[in-house]
Amino acid sequence: MPQNQQILLDNRPEGEASAANFKLVSTETPPLQDGQVLVQHHFLSLDPYMRGRMNAGKSYAQPQPLGAVMQGGIVGEVVESKNPRFQPGDKVVGMGGWQQYSVVDANQPGALRKVDTTHVPLSHYLGAVGMPGVTAWYGLVKIIAPKAGETMVISAATGAVGSAFAALAKARGCRVVGIAGGPDKCKYAVDELGFDACIDYKLHKDAGSLSKALKDACPDGIDGYFENVGGMILDAVLTRMNAFGRIAVCGMIAGYDGAPLPITYPALILVNRLKVQGFIVSEHMEIWPEALAELGQLVATGKLRPRESIAQGIEAAPEAFLGLLKGRNFGKQLVKVN
Amino acid sequence: MPQNQQILLDNRPEGEASAANFKLVSTETPPLQDGQVLVQHHFLSLDPYMRGRMNAGKSYAQPQPLGAVMQGGIVGEVVESKNPRFQPGDKVVGMGGWQQYSVVDANQPGALRKVDTTHVPLSHYLGAVGMPGVTAWYGLVKIIAPKAGETMVISAATGAVGSAFAALAKARGCRVVGIAGGPDKCKYAVDELGFDACIDYKLHKDAGSLSKALKDACPDGIDGYFENVGGMILDAVLTRMNAFGRIAVCGMIAGYDGAPLPITYPALILVNRLKVQGFIVSEHMEIWPEALAELGQLVATGKLRPRESIAQGIEAAPEAFLGLLKGRNFGKQLVKVN
Repeated sequence: MPQNQQILLDNRPEGEASAANFKLVSTETPPLQDGQVLVQHHFLSLDPYMRGRMNAGKSYAQPQPLGAVMQGGIVGEVVESKNPRFQPGDKVVGMGGWQQYSVVDANQPGALRKVDTTHVPLSHYLGAVGMPGVTAWYGLVKIIAPKAGETMVISAATGAVGSAFAALAKARGCRVVGIAGGPDKCKYAVDELGFDACIDYKLHKDAGSLSKALKDACPDGIDGYFENVGGMILDAVLTRMNAFGRIAVCGMIAGYDGAPLPITYPALILVNRLKVQGFIVSEHMEIWPEALAELGQLVATGKLRPRESIAQGIEAAPEAFLGLLKGRNFGKQLVKVN
Repeated sequence: MPQNQQILLDNRPEGEASAANFKLVSTETPPLQDGQVLVQHHFLSLDPYMRGRMNAGKSYAQPQPLGAVMQGGIVGEVVESKNPRFQPGDKVVGMGGWQQYSVVDANQPGALRKVDTTHVPLSHYLGAVGMPGVTAWYGLVKIIAPKAGETMVISAATGAVGSAFAALAKARGCRVVGIAGGPDKCKYAVDELGFDACIDYKLHKDAGSLSKALKDACPDGIDGYFENVGGMILDAVLTRMNAFGRIAVCGMIAGYDGAPLPITYPALILVNRLKVQGFIVSEHMEIWPEALAELGQLVATGKLRPRESIAQGIEAAPEAFLGLLKGRNFGKQLVKVN
């Protein structure tokens, strides 16, 4: 049986997360039982939601248990199978977590899914054609429900969710404006991802200044906003929302360390008759097939060409994850482990 | 022609509104043109939304013009008519504003509506069977969409909107909890309005304390919240919302003087996948007939027995209005003018 390097959650962060919260260990993979499959992980997915699960407090999901392998999505390859539906060599997507191998009870619904890599690179099943892509799809299609000609805005614009959002919104005839950190990301958003404009929030030190930049980039106001960040960015966007605007709340990464992250003028929700709605994509499995079909098509036809940041080796996962929380990644953050 | 005492908006408030913002004048009512009706006002309606219109800034409605009669709903009686659809003696609802008489072009759609006072007292057409009642109906039925057995909460519980909300929610099999200021209002909410419990917010000096009281009053959490106030009350309610809860934002009276009124933990919108939606009932005229029919039935059958605070004389309107903004009214605030 192969040696399996794993990253465990060793202790919970107090305030900001740090590398000291994690621990690298090595174990031997156990022999397979009937129905089980041994998956060699190629890429681990790193996603902001994982930060929330590191806390002990109440959230929408159970906290990540202490001393257990960090949970998360993976793509990889079946190397051994005692399940008739899977053969060695099959490319799969699963929830194997931060380790090099996982043993999966493949009879459990949704535990492991075979994917076709003819037109879509395997790693994209963790990004544009995976959970982040479906997240963009749900927020845009089911909550914002855009009409052609409307203006859509998204924060964390060059990330896995943002790039999918841009392609999906352009396909619906919208103007799409991104908010990202730094000139390189903004240039990339416009040149490569199809954004009509992108605002560098690092150039703005308060909501008033960012609000002016939004006015220039969105001359007809904002009809739909996809929230990944919270804080000053949400405050600024609220001042530019049109009447009957819709805000899909997917994340508030700026507040994941536990400090309050107030909205300064919630009365704008009333003044502009806004709908502000939080959602978690894993609670809406019924829309995944439709969303994945559209996203796969956009990738296969070159209309969605997402960028990836790839950290090398399982031991690099904690630092890559902490960088993601600071916005140091550029595109979907992955870890290559095998 | 009769003399007509009027209250004008003389100047705009800076911060808190005061009696010095208003001016009482007297004019003669002009002779009627064809199609016009002279209405003698019996009651003026005082409503929190009027405070927003006193400001010059952008809001959902045009600001109240300076030097013009304060706008607002009235009930009264036709005293002279050059319109074949109206006869002297007809009881009517209109938007005549803060004055003793109005001349109405009764051919304009929606300008004047005849009402039946057989089962519903005339003044109730400004409250339970008028705009405030329909406001409660829209927020409850169209935004919150309650299920039997769910828990509903409303702030400003004994006001015109709150009392209608309680009757409508009880009719749908919900537990209904009010938030009001002072022991008299809370006792009245439970004894007379059908609330299952009512919390006196004046006993709580911060959101944490109010949150504990909400936990006791709402042992199964909160599924729907109707927001009239904002500030600390909204913060406290957010901590007790159940997953997939709905918040109808109708008013934020605590912020009408222009100071920011932050939400401290908007991340709860995400954590609990809430829907928070602002609305203005005048934009949904299509639901008024259905809503008014149900509200009229609740009043006629004694299931909704709303309380009124009646100020005497047109000159009392400014102080009564300022009292309303401070929560000094008890039930629907009216002014008896003729």
